[in-house]
Amino acid sequence: MKVYLAGPDVFLPDGIEVGRQKLATCARYGLIGLFPLDNTVDPECFTASRDIFRGNETMMNDADAIIANLTPFRGPGADAGTVYELGYMAGRGKLCFGYCNDPAVYADRARRFTTVSEQDGRLVDAEGLTVEDFGLPDNLMMIHALELHGNPLVLPRERPADVWRDLSAFETCVRRAAQRLGAES
Amino acid sequence: MKVYLAGPDVFLPDGIEVGRQKLATCARYGLIGLFPLDNTVDPECFTASRDIFRGNETMMNDADAIIANLTPFRGPGADAGTVYELGYMAGRGKLCFGYCNDPAVYADRARRFTTVSEQDGRLVDAEGLTVEDFGLPDNLMMIHALELHGNPLVLPRERPADVWRDLSAFETCVRRAAQRLGAES
Repeated sequence: MKVYLAGPDVFLPDGIEVGRQKLATCARYGLIGLFPLDNTVDPECFTASRDIFRGNETMMNDADAIIANLTPFRGPGADAGTVYELGYMAGRGKLCFGYCNDPAVYADRARRFTTVSEQDGRLVDAEGLTVEDFGLPDNLMMIHALELHGNPLVLPRERPADVWRDLSAFETCVRRAAQRLGAES
Repeated sequence: MKVYLAGPDVFLPDGIEVGRQKLATCARYGLIGLFPLDNTVDPECFTASRDIFRGNETMMNDADAIIANLTPFRGPGADAGTVYELGYMAGRGKLCFGYCNDPAVYADRARRFTTVSEQDGRLVDAEGLTVEDFGLPDNLMMIHALELHGNPLVLPRERPADVWRDLSAFETCVRRAAQRLGAES
């Protein structure tokens, strides 16, 4: 069984090494991981971004499940590319797994980037836009997609020292994916 | 033909009014708009967030297309819930349309929130994570999803004074959706 490994890991300077570790973890549980950086794309080519998209989409179509790294990326919430991929896989009826190395609820995460205050009984940011306040770690669409299309979001009890390289929550997802996909060795 | 209207518009204090205007625009072009705030959910109920998710998913399953508002939300890129929905609709093979009221490229948007510098020939942020530098306005997954599953992202030539309420780019999407769905009156 194949699992697409989505996440902003691809943006790390050592993204290839992190991907290698993730693939090894999958293999230990009898799963084949598909990691975006395994696509061969010439970054200098003017169609590079389209080639990456096509490579990722082909991998997703080929996979039975997704494990999405939803750790906040450049803002209070998950990386947009990863979220797109989670939605795509849910739409295709694939099994959805996800983890996030920051257990803070969304309103607290938002407070790191904007002033959050109460207005007419709801939380709003500095622009006056509602801050979701359901006690969830991120936008409700992703949280409930995981719950209803696979497995609830996996969170560490405490934020690990290196949110980008700690793979404990990731491994929990792999274990559950292996159980659900019947691939346990 | 029905079009799901995704976007952080739901977080505006006057989100219901903006939704009403969007529905009226759809009707003018012979389309039925489906707007998330039309779901009746008791916000005090402990299952509120799940009820909203289910309501949105039902609307999406019922729609023939999506028009996603990808205007940057609380950071350099689009709202996560909207991005999830775009992915979901692409995964289900529905026609995808999107607009964004900020025509800046992603690297310039990122500069508003973090220090962007060059390192080993790539752009990185203050954390050392790669900043996508393909000259696109947002993460490549959404940009090429629109191009390949519907219609390229619609951008205004200049950022309008009120990015949350200017509906010109939205109307362009509606017009194109009506053409593609053969609903033009």
